Amino acid sequence: MAQIDLSIVIPIAILAGLGFAGILARDVLRRETGSDGMREIADAIRQGARAFLRRQYKTIAFIAAILAVLFAVALGLQRGLVLGLETAGAFALGATFSALSGYIGMHISIRSNVRSAAGSLKSFNDALVTALRGGAVSGLAIVSMSLAGVTLLYYGYGALGAAANPTTYNTCIATGLFTAAQCTAQAAEDTIILSIVGFGFGASLVALFAQLGGGIFTKAADVGADLVGKVEAGIPEDDPRNPAVIADLVGDNVGDCAGRGADLFESTAAENIGAMVLGVVLFQYFGVAGIIFPLVARGLGVIACIVGVLVVRAREDEAPMSALNRGYIVTSVLAALFFGFAAWAMLQPTLPTTSGGLTWAYYWMCGIVGMLTAVAYVWITQYYTEARYRPVKEIASASETGPATNIISGFSVGLEATAIPALVVSIAILASYWLGETTGIPRGGIYGTAIATMGMLSTAAYILAMDTFGPIVDNGAGIIEMSGMSETARKNMDKLDAAGNTTKALTKGYAVGSAALAAFLLFNAFLTEAHVNSVDLSHPETFIGAFMGAALVFLFSAYAIRAVGRAAWSIIKDVRDQFRENRGIMAGTSKPDYGRTVDIATRGALKEMVVPGILAVATPLAVGLIFRFVKITYIAGMPIPAGEPLGGFLMVGTIAGVLMALVLNTGGGAWDNAKKFIEAGNLGGKGSSTHKAAVVGDTVGDPFKDTAGPSLHILVKLLSTITLVIAPLLI
Amino acid sequence: MAQIDLSIVIPIAILAGLGFAGILARDVLRRETGSDGMREIADAIRQGARAFLRRQYKTIAFIAAILAVLFAVALGLQRGLVLGLETAGAFALGATFSALSGYIGMHISIRSNVRSAAGSLKSFNDALVTALRGGAVSGLAIVSMSLAGVTLLYYGYGALGAAANPTTYNTCIATGLFTAAQCTAQAAEDTIILSIVGFGFGASLVALFAQLGGGIFTKAADVGADLVGKVEAGIPEDDPRNPAVIADLVGDNVGDCAGRGADLFESTAAENIGAMVLGVVLFQYFGVAGIIFPLVARGLGVIACIVGVLVVRAREDEAPMSALNRGYIVTSVLAALFFGFAAWAMLQPTLPTTSGGLTWAYYWMCGIVGMLTAVAYVWITQYYTEARYRPVKEIASASETGPATNIISGFSVGLEATAIPALVVSIAILASYWLGETTGIPRGGIYGTAIATMGMLSTAAYILAMDTFGPIVDNGAGIIEMSGMSETARKNMDKLDAAGNTTKALTKGYAVGSAALAAFLLFNAFLTEAHVNSVDLSHPETFIGAFMGAALVFLFSAYAIRAVGRAAWSIIKDVRDQFRENRGIMAGTSKPDYGRTVDIATRGALKEMVVPGILAVATPLAVGLIFRFVKITYIAGMPIPAGEPLGGFLMVGTIAGVLMALVLNTGGGAWDNAKKFIEAGNLGGKGSSTHKAAVVGDTVGDPFKDTAGPSLHILVKLLSTITLVIAPLLI
Repeated sequence: MAQIDLSIVIPIAILAGLGFAGILARDVLRRETGSDGMREIADAIRQGARAFLRRQYKTIAFIAAILAVLFAVALGLQRGLVLGLETAGAFALGATFSALSGYIGMHISIRSNVRSAAGSLKSFNDALVTALRGGAVSGLAIVSMSLAGVTLLYYGYGALGAAANPTTYNTCIATGLFTAAQCTAQAAEDTIILSIVGFGFGASLVALFAQLGGGIFTKAADVGADLVGKVEAGIPEDDPRNPAVIADLVGDNVGDCAGRGADLFESTAAENIGAMVLGVVLFQYFGVAGIIFPLVARGLGVIACIVGVLVVRAREDEAPMSALNRGYIVTSVLAALFFGFAAWAMLQPTLPTTSGGLTWAYYWMCGIVGMLTAVAYVWITQYYTEARYRPVKEIASASETGPATNIISGFSVGLEATAIPALVVSIAILASYWLGETTGIPRGGIYGTAIATMGMLSTAAYILAMDTFGPIVDNGAGIIEMSGMSETARKNMDKLDAAGNTTKALTKGYAVGSAALAAFLLFNAFLTEAHVNSVDLSHPETFIGAFMGAALVFLFSAYAIRAVGRAAWSIIKDVRDQFRENRGIMAGTSKPDYGRTVDIATRGALKEMVVPGILAVATPLAVGLIFRFVKITYIAGMPIPAGEPLGGFLMVGTIAGVLMALVLNTGGGAWDNAKKFIEAGNLGGKGSSTHKAAVVGDTVGDPFKDTAGPSLHILVKLLSTITLVIAPLLI
Repeated sequence: MAQIDLSIVIPIAILAGLGFAGILARDVLRRETGSDGMREIADAIRQGARAFLRRQYKTIAFIAAILAVLFAVALGLQRGLVLGLETAGAFALGATFSALSGYIGMHISIRSNVRSAAGSLKSFNDALVTALRGGAVSGLAIVSMSLAGVTLLYYGYGALGAAANPTTYNTCIATGLFTAAQCTAQAAEDTIILSIVGFGFGASLVALFAQLGGGIFTKAADVGADLVGKVEAGIPEDDPRNPAVIADLVGDNVGDCAGRGADLFESTAAENIGAMVLGVVLFQYFGVAGIIFPLVARGLGVIACIVGVLVVRAREDEAPMSALNRGYIVTSVLAALFFGFAAWAMLQPTLPTTSGGLTWAYYWMCGIVGMLTAVAYVWITQYYTEARYRPVKEIASASETGPATNIISGFSVGLEATAIPALVVSIAILASYWLGETTGIPRGGIYGTAIATMGMLSTAAYILAMDTFGPIVDNGAGIIEMSGMSETARKNMDKLDAAGNTTKALTKGYAVGSAALAAFLLFNAFLTEAHVNSVDLSHPETFIGAFMGAALVFLFSAYAIRAVGRAAWSIIKDVRDQFRENRGIMAGTSKPDYGRTVDIATRGALKEMVVPGILAVATPLAVGLIFRFVKITYIAGMPIPAGEPLGGFLMVGTIAGVLMALVLNTGGGAWDNAKKFIEAGNLGGKGSSTHKAAVVGDTVGDPFKDTAGPSLHILVKLLSTITLVIAPLLI
């Protein structure tokens, strides 16, 4: 069968995604905003979040601009001016779009919160649909923009004309199978893709800083508000007398919405680019179709997600998770079917293969493997973090003997929770590689793992909608609580808030799973671009690169966790000062200066995000450049390729990063739910000494699961994109 | 210059080491044992420790016997009966010697404790010298026995006649440089060494179980005694009314003495064998001298340690650490000089090299690199775990805001403490590899890293003496406390106890450092024996092997940490029962049944050590065997070598294991000393809420630093030895 050109799907999907996001946004924004009291609180949150984002983006823009110039110059010197400028341009576009994604996600979530709360005054379904649609605006906008960015660059750079790429051309010619014209075409495609990798790096850079800054802000505000409010002043949570209470609600938006938005923007972008790099390698078999297949598959995924969002509608007595799951199942089934169609239409080889006419079916199965991996990760996350299973119960009963045993038990659950996910992703990689290899296409195996990653990420927009749903309903519940609304509204929002906690945990599992699966594909993209054939750990340089990669993960986690403690200190100090300066606050006669605390939290978080962020960028650069000049191992008189130690760094850093993220996310989530399990009246209930011990675990888990863990997902992908960008410097 | 045969040094050193250990033992045993009260307590500790060890060894013997038979059969089928039996025999000897080492160490330490305590009644110097000499008995006995075991096997198997080894022979012949006779000699040597690797595996297996079981026992007793004694019954620490108080003191002996003794026995054995494997590779250059050089170097190290122990003598007003350090400096300088002499005498190449007559000097410098690494690790450990530096101070002040911030801060210190050690060991590997490579000898680089490891371990006996010193004085202080002796005696012992805490922390740093440095050498020994030329992470099987290796470390840590919690529970239950059954205990009219608690702690610890122990042995076996049959990546039509995925498993598992051990050891040590810093009167002192928060961190750190961390050192080395043993199965 001949290939069918489905490239038209890409612009349609982008327009459909963005258009539908716009329609949903109008729908959400037209909804009611409740009482004056509710609006007042929502306004304060909105101002705080916008002020934080503005300042954060200034800092990030400064760092990004320096890096863009550096890369343009370095790549320009090494590979010619055109490639240098193209890469720097792609970097700038990636950074801008990523920032824009975070901005849009937050823009709509800080407006959906109060509208979902207002909806809860009327009906449960109103509250749920408002929050999910608010989440879907950012989900769809983010994934569509990621697709739009790569597509624009791909066609734009193609139209500008591709510089010659002798290495790819020569490799192609050396096979003796192809004409000069065919090889020229492949070389041109490679050059285009090579400059697009800057887009992925720009996206990851912004995502890392966004998640770090937002994550530090949100947890510092949380810990600070709790320690000085609950412990020192003895006022309850979310009490309007606490000057840090608005900062706490702002944190949900800038940490979870903007952070995870940038994270998944970057995931989809990096994975698309990585798969396209490998598509070039299979150019002889699939031509341009193999390169743009990732874009088409992503586009069809966006359409599946639109349908999924539309079908969600909850009965008044329904558990919110069951309504949300219905949408997820519809999205997944549609995505699987679309995926099969795209594979059938596009992955028809032009050269004979051992799998013959069924080649597309093998790759479709790879996509299914990826989707199953997503389901497995979601399930495993539930097992380790929900109170109905053994691990959380164990932590809760360990709390009976005090905080120390609670910590020991929770930490051991976090460590344990790495084994099965590691096994699942290993099986997924092996299965998809084997399926791809069975087609008989050279390097078809690695393309199989690329397609599995696409399958896993095909439902990303829906997952992102569920994720953003979390902070929206969390905020909504806070607004209802602070403005003293009716019991029914409070019940409705509490139910949604609990579901929001679940969706946030699940999407974190999904994000780390996709990072793990994408890793192997991104390694191979790096090896292809750095002209490295093997990453041999028996070479001392490579072993040391690997050692440094793992050590970076540990050091980065140390800084991310510590940052929260430091930033929390500045908030504690400010709250104490406000209480002292204005006695009317505690008496309830005058209002605290919420803005001042937000401002201080902002400054603290931005200051603390710089060191770990720079560390993440500087270490791979240092390892890459040092081993470009330090030559130790010689094989047959030739030093090993300069990119090999960096390959070891990347691979082992990724392994360590994924495992550490699992420990921190799962440990944190399990501690959180062990506390909630006790608060639900078990083992002595709220206020008992068991509960107090569990609160310690919950507080320890906060920076684990909301700052360091999610930042590690991004670190892992940033390592992949930065190594791809510097790959040409190592040839 | 021609080589000088120094093999005579080996038996002399063994006899000197064992003989001197005997003399020291007689000297210690002849000393006074103090009052009746002191003897009574010491007797109870002795009985408990012996009962534990007897039961533990039975369990271990059972597991070891099964493994010995399995390996004998498997290797017999694959490589012939002789090799199978020889390996199984070496395994049995290694396991027996390792168990014996643990036994001797404990035998003397449970007698030195009361004698050191009695010494403190007379003078400070008496107490210190008794404890150090007691420690030196086990240090010297252990290192001498490790040397004796390998030596016995090497000469014994050589005398029995070595089976033919076609692979080594063919590789040698293929170079075209050597005669058939030369290659036959090399093949024979290789076969001998190949069967000796069983010795290392037997030693690591016993060490792993000894450390796990002992570590679980000691911390379960500690946590259990504290929680039910201090918290529930409200009686002070070391109160004779607490039924778990003897179990707590027993724990110091079985966890620290027997555990670390088996650990360093196995370190020195594994490193000797690994270096000898590489010595075979350089057979053409150094002949048998290159193979036995590690044994000679170790022997000279023993002699240096004897001198070091003899020079220690403290003034009454001297800080104990300064006296101990004097001995360490003497040992190090002597060892460095002896090392240079041995290198000059033995490492004279018989073929031309680029380094000519200075070849020995390059390798001597490698040894110096190793010694400097030891010093660096000791210094870094001090920085991260002593109260006079930033990290511990930071944890102490974080305790002011409660246990949660204490935990966050301590965990972040642990994570941070991985970076510089990783950097140091990386530099050591690169430097020694480069020095070895510069000689121009093929594979001379890797032999350089082997020699660096020898250098690092040349002071092992002295380090071990300092380490065993710790539990002896800890016990001594407890005996003085419980029997209510004079203020001077108490002061003397407290000073020593504080020094003992320091030496225990430093030797843990040394142990993990030597594991890290030895790792690269042991990898290469594995690659040599498994006939694997590269460990290429870009192959999916190898990447997955690597992923599994790292995941094993996380899962193993989870089980080791959890085991302490579970075993502590059974102790808590028993203590509660005893208080209820016999009201006279709390009244002080009748004595608790210490033996019963020891018995229950023993059963709990032995039960909990089995799962992580089996996991450590079964996982590498499974990874090795699965990828022997599952073939996915084909290069030029051939599957990748069956040993490659296991190589990835080993290397990345080692990286993860070393880093995780650093986190756990350092975090635990830092929490401990933050608590002590507060107890010394800082930040509110004992009894303040800051102190209570710090106690939580200390309790969390207990299973980290005394169970999971030290077990991870051994896990790392067990992975090396088990992969070496199964290497022939993967060819």
